[in-house]
Formats: sequence, C-alpha cells, structure tokens
Amino acid sequence: MAEPSSFPPPGAAAELEEGSALTPKFDADGLVTAVASDAASGEVLMVAHMNAEALQQTIATGEAWYFSRARRALWRKGETSGHTQRVVELRVDCDQDAVWLKVEQEVAACHTGRRSCFYRAVPLGQKGRAVKLELRGERLFDPKGADKKP
Amino acid sequence: MAEPSSFPPPGAAAELEEGSALTPKFDADGLVTAVASDAASGEVLMVAHMNAEALQQTIATGEAWYFSRARRALWRKGETSGHTQRVVELRVDCDQDAVWLKVEQEVAACHTGRRSCFYRAVPLGQKGRAVKLELRGERLFDPKGADKKP
Repeated sequence: MAEPSSFPPPGAAAELEEGSALTPKFDADGLVTAVASDAASGEVLMVAHMNAEALQQTIATGEAWYFSRARRALWRKGETSGHTQRVVELRVDCDQDAVWLKVEQEVAACHTGRRSCFYRAVPLGQKGRAVKLELRGERLFDPKGADKKP
Repeated sequence: MAEPSSFPPPGAAAELEEGSALTPKFDADGLVTAVASDAASGEVLMVAHMNAEALQQTIATGEAWYFSRARRALWRKGETSGHTQRVVELRVDCDQDAVWLKVEQEVAACHTGRRSCFYRAVPLGQKGRAVKLELRGERLFDPKGADKKP
C-alpha cells in the first residue's frame, strides 16, 4: 500500500477550472465524489468516495480504490468479492471535487448482486410523497460474501 | 414552485435496498448526490446535489432541478443559461443516497462552456504529487452569463 500522501492544494477558481494541475478539492472529511460508469455501455455503476490515498492508488495502479465512509478505511473495489474495476479513463470535473471513472467491471458493481447500484427507476410526473420504484436490474450473483457498500 | 415537502423516512438496509418505496437518505445537509449523464452517449455530464424539494421538482416536472450548496438555493438547471436538462430516466441507488439522471442536455452542462464538467483526463500510472491533466473537451459557448457551478 502507498504511504499517505497529498496533492498540491487547490487554487482559485480560474486555476482549478482551467489549470493543468490535478489539485483535488477534498471536502471537510477529506473526500471527493467518485462516479464509476461502464466504459462500454455508459451505464452508471456506482457513486462512492475517494480520499487522497484512494485517488493516488487509483492513478498509480489503474484499478479503482475508494474510501469507505462507514468503515473509515481504504478499499480496493473487489478486494473481497473479486468484482474489480479496471480504469479505462479517469476524469476530473471543473472544480475538482468529483472524479469520473470509465471502468471495465468484473461481474457486478453492486453489493446487492446487480450490475449497477442504480437498479431502480423513479417514475416521472408524480407529485405526492409516495413514489413507487420500478426494478430495472436483475441479480448476477448471490450477495452473501460480496463487498459491503460503504 | 412546489411547497416544501418531504419523502417518507428511510428504513433499515433491507427496506432501503429491496423495497419499492422511494425513501431518500439525505445527508446531514439534507442532500443526496445527483449524477447526470447524456442519455444518448452515456457521457457523464456533471455531479451536483439535490435536496428534497429539488428531487420532488425533478420528479414532478421531468426537468433537472438541483440545490446549490454555494448559494443555498433551489436551482432549475439552465434557468439563466437556457441549457436545460430534460430527464429521460431517473434512477436511485441501492442505499438511496444518490440518484442518476439520464438527460437530454441543451448545448452544454458545464458553466465553463464545455459539454461535460469532466473535460480533463488524469493520466494513469503515475506515482508523484504532480499530475498533469489532459484536456478532452472544447468550449461550446462563452461562459459569461451561464449558470454558475454551485
């Protein structure tokens, strides 16, 4: 595992947005938001978080590392389940507080056994409190023993 | 504008993950993470946040509404720039603290003038602090007068 390390501090908006230096804007908990999508289909697979070390490990290894907020621990995606993510391309957003990973996902991203964590659709055009979700994804594996969602 | 309103409170994990009720798990600031991607290309356009009202307005109108953390205000995407997002499909993730919007984006999503906020790639395989970003997106409009990124 890499030693704890850091990126240069974020500058003003113009530098953050138009500069060529990676200077992530970590939040009060030291995290940026990470969105992983399927490099082939474009399907969004999951939303998670990275601390500086997770981001550096992802950059160094080309595999997706995250930081589990629940477990307060660095986490290589798939380290227990085998459902790893090979990063095809990594992007950072305008204000450098979010990253987007295009990945090749082994089997399934979601700890419930579905390919994507976003396996339920919210019907549009409703105004009430009670919104009924519609299932969109099927289970690809038995969730017992898989990565726990942080 | 809709009156302030709320969703049913989130239940235990089994209910959150397998239930058919939308019970968003808002964070301490009352927000969920929202990822918008291009319904046609699958490109991730932006990451933002929604409070209960933004989510309800999105569901009711089929247009993307967000909550600006910087301005502490509800925000209809494109209300000043005209660069609106028509929601083709809305999904919620396993633990209901993130939503994914597949959208038809008018012109460009990013306040810097690019189609996507993720217009810079992070090269992989590097181990140092100094990571040089590579431009991937071109400007589609003059950023003056566009929506401000929250």
